[in-house]
Amino acid sequence: MLAFGGNALLQAGQKGTFEEQLANVERTCENLVPLLEAGCELVIGHGNGPQVGNGLLRHQAGEKMYGLPAQPMDFCGAETQGSIAYLIETALDRVLARHGIVRPVVSLVTRVEVAADDPHFQNPTKPVGPYYQEIPDQVGNDGVMAGHDRPSQYRQDPKGRGWRKVVASPVPIGIQNASLVGRLAGEGYIVVTVGGGGIPVVRDGRSPVQPGMTAPLKGVEAVIDKDLASALCAQLIGAEELYILTDVPKVYVNFRKPDERALDSLTIGEAKKLIEEGQAAEGSMAPKIRAGIYFLEHGGKTCIITEAGSLGDPACGTRIIK
Amino acid sequence: MLAFGGNALLQAGQKGTFEEQLANVERTCENLVPLLEAGCELVIGHGNGPQVGNGLLRHQAGEKMYGLPAQPMDFCGAETQGSIAYLIETALDRVLARHGIVRPVVSLVTRVEVAADDPHFQNPTKPVGPYYQEIPDQVGNDGVMAGHDRPSQYRQDPKGRGWRKVVASPVPIGIQNASLVGRLAGEGYIVVTVGGGGIPVVRDGRSPVQPGMTAPLKGVEAVIDKDLASALCAQLIGAEELYILTDVPKVYVNFRKPDERALDSLTIGEAKKLIEEGQAAEGSMAPKIRAGIYFLEHGGKTCIITEAGSLGDPACGTRIIK
Repeated sequence: MLAFGGNALLQAGQKGTFEEQLANVERTCENLVPLLEAGCELVIGHGNGPQVGNGLLRHQAGEKMYGLPAQPMDFCGAETQGSIAYLIETALDRVLARHGIVRPVVSLVTRVEVAADDPHFQNPTKPVGPYYQEIPDQVGNDGVMAGHDRPSQYRQDPKGRGWRKVVASPVPIGIQNASLVGRLAGEGYIVVTVGGGGIPVVRDGRSPVQPGMTAPLKGVEAVIDKDLASALCAQLIGAEELYILTDVPKVYVNFRKPDERALDSLTIGEAKKLIEEGQAAEGSMAPKIRAGIYFLEHGGKTCIITEAGSLGDPACGTRIIK
Repeated sequence: MLAFGGNALLQAGQKGTFEEQLANVERTCENLVPLLEAGCELVIGHGNGPQVGNGLLRHQAGEKMYGLPAQPMDFCGAETQGSIAYLIETALDRVLARHGIVRPVVSLVTRVEVAADDPHFQNPTKPVGPYYQEIPDQVGNDGVMAGHDRPSQYRQDPKGRGWRKVVASPVPIGIQNASLVGRLAGEGYIVVTVGGGGIPVVRDGRSPVQPGMTAPLKGVEAVIDKDLASALCAQLIGAEELYILTDVPKVYVNFRKPDERALDSLTIGEAKKLIEEGQAAEGSMAPKIRAGIYFLEHGGKTCIITEAGSLGDPACGTRIIK
């Protein structure tokens, strides 16, 4: 199982044309060649941070200019699963043909279940989408937009850029079609799944069901951490290794300080200590290490946190081991 | 194999909120229950006309308001595969739970191959996306936008609403992962594929390949008829029946005239004659009948053109037979 960030598609300083995005993802896929030439089974999870952010802006702009109803974040996330999978497949095709590797590729639209009573929903913290100069219509003084099937919460930006929707980042507890993903990977398919951490869904207890049936799933506006979703997917498909790609070669102690030290490996205990000591930045390295710990504690053998360009080196990255 | 239109999601007079779209697709899925209760294997293809049109407008609006580069039509089509599959899966889940039917659902992002030398590319006729009051920058007097990796063609709207991009509607010749779709359907999965007729791709002869490898696929801006793509998919997976859903119960001769007559069945010869006589409207019934003829001439047993609400009736619709 391999996870790469939405930033692997859209790089700093780029505007994000189709050609730029395709070139970025092709570069990332080129780095997977050593894994493919070694005959590894491969499942790819990916982020969608910049993409879903742009999607939300496009939906808002479409509403203002053309009166097209802006769709909720789960819908926009589903859009990015389609478009990013398409970019990855196009790029992989080119890389495979160039290297003479024959492997089929399949991309699944993937809903990821979170608990309706996940405590993170009580305190949403992830700001998403456009800034509003005035608190949007229908939003009360508490920042909650009421009278809607799905109430949204808004907060004022501390830097004075306006109001912004905030959503929760709940913990993934189930991956749609995970067993199928594992089976296809075992047959040689390169499988793309859990795009953007998955489309977040909860069991809808209000929807009528026949006796004995599970409640159906319905979407919620939330952000599922893509590394954690990939770790859960890795667990469910029985993957041995979880690769988490980032833009630095390894995990560091005292990162970007004079006594910075790269880590070749970490036990689970050492990894937990690193997080407790605040050595791993939230929103950056900490969630990757947490995903690695989760994977190791749920049957995984090794989690490798590394940059894409080093995948050919057997000693690449920082390995979290038992 | 069953195909339904993008209009099954977005109905006339609706603005297209998430709740409206979900209710529309749930109503369509409710009508599939007789097929599911009869134990039919089921693969769903769907259109995306209104959705990809809205997507193109949102991309244009995002560029104007936020400077986000508008992505090409194939990218927007991939977005709709993700979002529409998500709506279908959510709706199907609810319908299955309500009726006590246990069937897994899987949606594939699907590229559909067309020939790079398809003659339709020489004369693109499908207007798509926003109207421009002035011919866009970089577009010459011949309506062709040059100096771009993928030149676009623009035409002036005959009703004076401005300039609009026109794309071709090439013939689908290959469906990505068709054999996998057939296998999964045989295992009981409800498979969603060829969304919007598929993301149109051609073999990229300029991309380097190892000897013996097929050229990789690259996207093109085009519209693949979703009924024809579904017919090809039906052929490739060895489906016995192709259902094409529309908003009228049957095919008619002298449609909406005093001597209108509903047709219960048509041979291939009769179907061809109907098209030759201009009895079937282009852009509406004619492509459906053509898709049926294609299916019958390529191993299919029956094509049923009908409205979703009649699927429970064994005598529903117009059957095209050999």
